[in-house]
Amino acid sequence: MQRYFIEAVAQVNDIVQLSEADSRHLLRVMRAKNGEKVIVVTNHTPFEAEVIEGDPLAHVRLVRELEQASELPVQVTIACGLSKHDKVETIVQKATECGMHEFVPLTLKRDIVKWDGKKANQRVERLAKIAKEAAEQSHRTIVPEVQPLRNLRSLLAVSSLYDIKLVAYEETAKTGAHTALKQIAQQLQTDQKVLVVFGSEGGLAPEEVAQLLEAGFTPCSLGPRILRAETAPIYLLSALSYQLEL
Amino acid sequence: MQRYFIEAVAQVNDIVQLSEADSRHLLRVMRAKNGEKVIVVTNHTPFEAEVIEGDPLAHVRLVRELEQASELPVQVTIACGLSKHDKVETIVQKATECGMHEFVPLTLKRDIVKWDGKKANQRVERLAKIAKEAAEQSHRTIVPEVQPLRNLRSLLAVSSLYDIKLVAYEETAKTGAHTALKQIAQQLQTDQKVLVVFGSEGGLAPEEVAQLLEAGFTPCSLGPRILRAETAPIYLLSALSYQLEL
Repeated sequence: MQRYFIEAVAQVNDIVQLSEADSRHLLRVMRAKNGEKVIVVTNHTPFEAEVIEGDPLAHVRLVRELEQASELPVQVTIACGLSKHDKVETIVQKATECGMHEFVPLTLKRDIVKWDGKKANQRVERLAKIAKEAAEQSHRTIVPEVQPLRNLRSLLAVSSLYDIKLVAYEETAKTGAHTALKQIAQQLQTDQKVLVVFGSEGGLAPEEVAQLLEAGFTPCSLGPRILRAETAPIYLLSALSYQLEL
Repeated sequence: MQRYFIEAVAQVNDIVQLSEADSRHLLRVMRAKNGEKVIVVTNHTPFEAEVIEGDPLAHVRLVRELEQASELPVQVTIACGLSKHDKVETIVQKATECGMHEFVPLTLKRDIVKWDGKKANQRVERLAKIAKEAAEQSHRTIVPEVQPLRNLRSLLAVSSLYDIKLVAYEETAKTGAHTALKQIAQQLQTDQKVLVVFGSEGGLAPEEVAQLLEAGFTPCSLGPRILRAETAPIYLLSALSYQLEL
């Protein structure tokens, strides 16, 4: 069944209205008729819902609450350096499928592209849209939040809000020290907040790694092969899912 | 260091010649001069090598054998239904980074595209090139083989060559039975051959699932979220790497 997120808080038997974009998708693209069933997610809870009116905005009635078990038991924030746009979009899409809680675009020394002023806001909006679509498609009950662009200093300033802080660093992979991630993953507690920093395609500069380590980040390897910038976050989230959900 | 695969079997102090494409990459793109170091992989063994001559083909002398530890301890074959071409290419590239041993393009009932005759061969050649480049980039010591297009009957006919046979099936994910993959992964032995079947974007048809189960395949979930066709193989390989390499 098609899945839509709404902002209003609602319960069984309530009639709610979908957004303009979602109404267009449901009525024009999916050609839904009155009586058809969809899933509507509100306040992290999925409901089976029935289309009751469709012109011009779709109205649906919440029929029953569905069991929800599609969220990783920990909240993982992925902070990534700026690779080419399609790669950042790939990361947000795939990481949303794999259970990411929040995405932070991070400007680093070796970034491949720059995001300036207005462009930065447009990029964040576009990534938020990709996250919403991927959340619907992968049956999430939350849409990962895409934060505004941060620099490393600004990220470090809020990093104490996280219980676990990791940095994926390929030099660690080369030394053969591969156990840090597993050791940490095996001790994760439900609802802990995990922040993981990844470089762009250009990698992390040694002084950035030094700053991260000084701020209490643990360097971790993602295995003995060198992963591309857009593959590394998927590896990490898949590994956490395997540890915590299978 | 840049990494190239050669077909000739060689040992330390031997002088070997790179292929035309690799010579062009090394000399024109990377602008390597005599005396520069590269990594050359022959017969699954990586060597540090020195450029000794570069016109028109690059000749390098093998200086010393490097420690090799970049291969998954099990041989994983990924067999996938035919999604749109860029998605199949993404699967081959990312699965190579994540340690795939072999790729089988599989024609299934709900395929999104068809590969006919000559086009099938061209697609396989193109995928083989992507696998080679991804193997070099990710520091593999083997290039995953891309097999010719198979149908399900032909795959089942050779499936007894594999020690472990899995099918990723999203209906399993929906029932909440998520433990099969972990149970199997925890019992894997070094060098075992693992075959995993994935549907295309269109999914597997129920009768195909029935045939696979009858042939001894174990259905497995990749967690509670619905993954796209191109994400599922990366999740699987990341999970196996986490279990076996971290």
